[in-house]
Amino acid sequence: MAPTPNVKEATGNQSSWNTLLPDFPKGPLSKYRKKASFNWKEMAVFLDGEDIIRLKNRIFSALESDPFFAHHPGEELSREKYQELTFLRCKRLFEYDFLTQQEIIENPLKILNMVICIGMYDWSPCLQFFLHCGVFGGTILSASKRFADFAKKIYNMEIFGCFALTELSHGTNTKGIRTTATFDHNTQEFIINSPDFEAAKFWVGNMGKHATHAVVYAQLYTPDGQCQGLHSFIVQIRDTKTLLPMPGVMVGDIGKKIGQNGLDNGFAMFHNVRIPKESILNITGDVSPEGKYSSSFKDVKERFSAALGSLSTGRILITAVSATNLKLALSIAIRFSATRHQFGPTDEEEIPVIEYQTQQWRLLPYLAAAYALDYFSKSLFENFVEFYAGLLTKQRSQRQADLGREIHALSAASKPLSSWTAQQAAQECREACGGHGYLAMNRLGEIRNDNDPNCTYEGDNNVLLQQTSNYLMSWMNCIRSKRLSFKYEMHYYIRQEKAMDVSTGWSEADIRSSVMSGRDSVDIFYEICLPQLRSGISRSIYRETTAEVAKCVSFLFKQLKDDAVALVDVFAPPDFILNSPIGKASGEVRLLVFHVYTFYSCVIHKWNVHNRT
Amino acid sequence: MAPTPNVKEATGNQSSWNTLLPDFPKGPLSKYRKKASFNWKEMAVFLDGEDIIRLKNRIFSALESDPFFAHHPGEELSREKYQELTFLRCKRLFEYDFLTQQEIIENPLKILNMVICIGMYDWSPCLQFFLHCGVFGGTILSASKRFADFAKKIYNMEIFGCFALTELSHGTNTKGIRTTATFDHNTQEFIINSPDFEAAKFWVGNMGKHATHAVVYAQLYTPDGQCQGLHSFIVQIRDTKTLLPMPGVMVGDIGKKIGQNGLDNGFAMFHNVRIPKESILNITGDVSPEGKYSSSFKDVKERFSAALGSLSTGRILITAVSATNLKLALSIAIRFSATRHQFGPTDEEEIPVIEYQTQQWRLLPYLAAAYALDYFSKSLFENFVEFYAGLLTKQRSQRQADLGREIHALSAASKPLSSWTAQQAAQECREACGGHGYLAMNRLGEIRNDNDPNCTYEGDNNVLLQQTSNYLMSWMNCIRSKRLSFKYEMHYYIRQEKAMDVSTGWSEADIRSSVMSGRDSVDIFYEICLPQLRSGISRSIYRETTAEVAKCVSFLFKQLKDDAVALVDVFAPPDFILNSPIGKASGEVRLLVFHVYTFYSCVIHKWNVHNRT
Repeated sequence: MAPTPNVKEATGNQSSWNTLLPDFPKGPLSKYRKKASFNWKEMAVFLDGEDIIRLKNRIFSALESDPFFAHHPGEELSREKYQELTFLRCKRLFEYDFLTQQEIIENPLKILNMVICIGMYDWSPCLQFFLHCGVFGGTILSASKRFADFAKKIYNMEIFGCFALTELSHGTNTKGIRTTATFDHNTQEFIINSPDFEAAKFWVGNMGKHATHAVVYAQLYTPDGQCQGLHSFIVQIRDTKTLLPMPGVMVGDIGKKIGQNGLDNGFAMFHNVRIPKESILNITGDVSPEGKYSSSFKDVKERFSAALGSLSTGRILITAVSATNLKLALSIAIRFSATRHQFGPTDEEEIPVIEYQTQQWRLLPYLAAAYALDYFSKSLFENFVEFYAGLLTKQRSQRQADLGREIHALSAASKPLSSWTAQQAAQECREACGGHGYLAMNRLGEIRNDNDPNCTYEGDNNVLLQQTSNYLMSWMNCIRSKRLSFKYEMHYYIRQEKAMDVSTGWSEADIRSSVMSGRDSVDIFYEICLPQLRSGISRSIYRETTAEVAKCVSFLFKQLKDDAVALVDVFAPPDFILNSPIGKASGEVRLLVFHVYTFYSCVIHKWNVHNRT
Repeated sequence: MAPTPNVKEATGNQSSWNTLLPDFPKGPLSKYRKKASFNWKEMAVFLDGEDIIRLKNRIFSALESDPFFAHHPGEELSREKYQELTFLRCKRLFEYDFLTQQEIIENPLKILNMVICIGMYDWSPCLQFFLHCGVFGGTILSASKRFADFAKKIYNMEIFGCFALTELSHGTNTKGIRTTATFDHNTQEFIINSPDFEAAKFWVGNMGKHATHAVVYAQLYTPDGQCQGLHSFIVQIRDTKTLLPMPGVMVGDIGKKIGQNGLDNGFAMFHNVRIPKESILNITGDVSPEGKYSSSFKDVKERFSAALGSLSTGRILITAVSATNLKLALSIAIRFSATRHQFGPTDEEEIPVIEYQTQQWRLLPYLAAAYALDYFSKSLFENFVEFYAGLLTKQRSQRQADLGREIHALSAASKPLSSWTAQQAAQECREACGGHGYLAMNRLGEIRNDNDPNCTYEGDNNVLLQQTSNYLMSWMNCIRSKRLSFKYEMHYYIRQEKAMDVSTGWSEADIRSSVMSGRDSVDIFYEICLPQLRSGISRSIYRETTAEVAKCVSFLFKQLKDDAVALVDVFAPPDFILNSPIGKASGEVRLLVFHVYTFYSCVIHKWNVHNRT
């Protein structure tokens, strides 16, 4: 199930790599680049392949030469202006149309790489673009052919969409959603209502300012008063010309967030909003003109799962998005650490801080994690593509079923692992760059703040860990019996530890004594194992090790530190995209100085005037 | 060495507590308040004493009724405007003059409490105020009586000051500072110069926009060309009326930071700036009219330590500041967790999230840490007051010397512990509040971003941990011999573990084998112990525990969860100061709703207009 590394291409000749991947400008980092034990270009081609690298180059250079994507260092953008600019950038992404349908079919990994490239520049336009085409558009397209005309308007941006699932009082617990859609067979319409403000749609990306239409999740009521469970509907929320709210719709921006402020997250309340019968996205069920409900699924529970099917994409994407943030933060911190001189053997001679073991302990484990998560997230995406193709072709094989369950469980485990690792790494990188890391222009704060919601949306990390556990429990067939045979139990814990790649450390004796005392296995799991599972993840990130391992790791660090800059060169985007004066490819610290100079040219002017008088 | 809890006052009668500490408004949190096993007012009086509570009430209500301190929810303040407002607020703090000299002498803890109260509102005006009076003013006052006239101007804000130590390329490594002050005996002046931009003073709080004068640290050169080491000088950097830079001074704002953006951190370069001979702060040394250097200290190293003496205050203060941030974040997250209902035994019935064991594991250990750090930071401050009094009265006793060394070491250890705990807690609290935690108006992002630099300034946390280790090493007298007897060594590790309150987990066998193989003890320490010491701290924060402890802790959580709201009530500031809709004392979630309504009143208006048409 792993992606095939491009062994063939990697043995290609050096001249083709040089065309694809030009050398970095000479500067303070050259010293470490010469020390590297491998060719970073060979590694890049080995990991991505020439075709993906060409795509990346195409996207990066398009953004760099487009005035809409210009950086304005030192200029303060209000949230309002930033949102407007994000929307304009999103529109430009449509015009670029970086990938043809054919390219996507030939290599679906290109979609993921496109998202990553745009996100490396800024997540706000990237998410806005993806929410409109991928989530809003994708949901409608997968519903039925009757939306073909509507789809055309989506892809030429005549209409702009959002995906309205979560409510003010219910995010991760989607079952608790309370918006209603009542079928009126007299007028052949659905009537959408928000019972109160706590049931307002909330947090919806694109809804705050720009969306004209929403896919709205609501509890469907048939004329017999029966609730048929959660279904989705297309609801127009704004006039496409004036952008004024439609009658009965109260819609607005939810206000400033900790990060991702280019994206207009919004809220909406519905007061007797009537939509035509055809607006139901008949993925899970439909209503006859007389108001009779029919579904291709047997029970409500199954229907519910199917309705939420499109959500697993989100977790897979976040695994990759977080891994990208990890790479951005490390690119900045490792390059800075290799150029920043501080302290030294004598008072006069200072050495680069990457030479210090504490700095290596802080950064290099995250560098290893970046490579592991990058490979894992792409492999998971490829599995998902296989599964999704099976869905479209209505595969009913055992492999298809197994793949579905395993992807669901893996994404529920990898999303917390990846987002927490990136979050902690961004903080560590910020601290590892000292005061320079705290300057906004060096971007580590933005990376941390933009990554932060990855720990929460598409399923809160802690809740997802419980889901992973549930999957492992059900896989063992132990929930039904509610009794654990001790042998199975151990087998299960060992697998679980492997899945999380951590040693959880609970003792055999503990669980044995709990089982012996006749306690419920679910109780035992939640009370003994789950808290430790979580602490285990934190621990693995924080590299708690025995003294033996510590000595061994210290030894490896000594070798790895000279490769660290080259390992970062493999995945760091161009300077324009990385947009961090202390993370520049040359390592030229003077550039920071010039940057500051540009910043305060007016001050320098004043200074000169003073000196002349 | 511990502060005496106010046992006597705590036995006072309930009616006096009620006057001091009014009941909270009834609401959803009343349920948990009734469940508490203790009286929160009794606890508050026990910890602080009535006198301190009265001071807190005075400060809190002054800020709440002052229009300069009004909150403007939903209004976006540019950085420029925020800096202006911060300066005006700082001025108001002067006018309030919350503490008389007499009060401070009677109970020095009041200064610390005043700083904490203002900081709970916003750290920017608090730090601006403290940097001017405490750091700038304090340094000048302790130098010599010849600055008495100057001091008057400081305290009526005719001049406004900053403390310029760190440079662009040298923060924590203060020995590397390269600004020069050359004595010219012809004109009886010092000439201040920045050799290049990397030696520009950088990060200096108050310097960006408002400071008229700076205490500048520079290498003193006497006419014989000799460098006499680091000394401090008063340099006027701006005209007091026009605020234009003085001739030869290039000064400006360093730009946007991740947080604390009300505070104007600045940079400055000096080009042949001449200051009168009297501007030297003759704490460590002085220059005769002929240019001969004299010092009360024997060697350069000793002089250097004395020159930096005033810095230890910073670490003690940061220990308390971080503990305050921890309290703010917990007040919000625990109150929200007790009111937010999510999931439940049935689909219809939902329960408060604080009832979930995962939520308890996430928040309650930090609640325990908040109480521990609060007590510790105040006790350390009291020790410092004793030590400082000894300094002023020129005490030369053994106790004074021991106190000095121990305070230096303790503050170097407590500052990383407290700032990292607060930083991780703020992130955990943000995540524990889900999407609501990510909304800027709920303040968890601000708390985390404002706390962040506490990990860096006044000595980088990682470097400070090394200093702590050095202290412990020197205490054992083992650096000089460079050989460790095994018995002493073990003794030392055990003490070190205790000092950090963590089990570092390195094995006897490991260290023994390293010692046997003849390796240098300092090498062993840096390679085996230090990385683990740091990981140990992370681990203790992340509560890695054995299964036995886990079961015990889970049991305690069940008891503690019903006391959590009351434990937070003890230290949470009034709603106006806490300024977080989800952290309101009543727990009234509707208030959040109203808050959002106020936010978007214009949208509601539009909605009404639409509905009528």
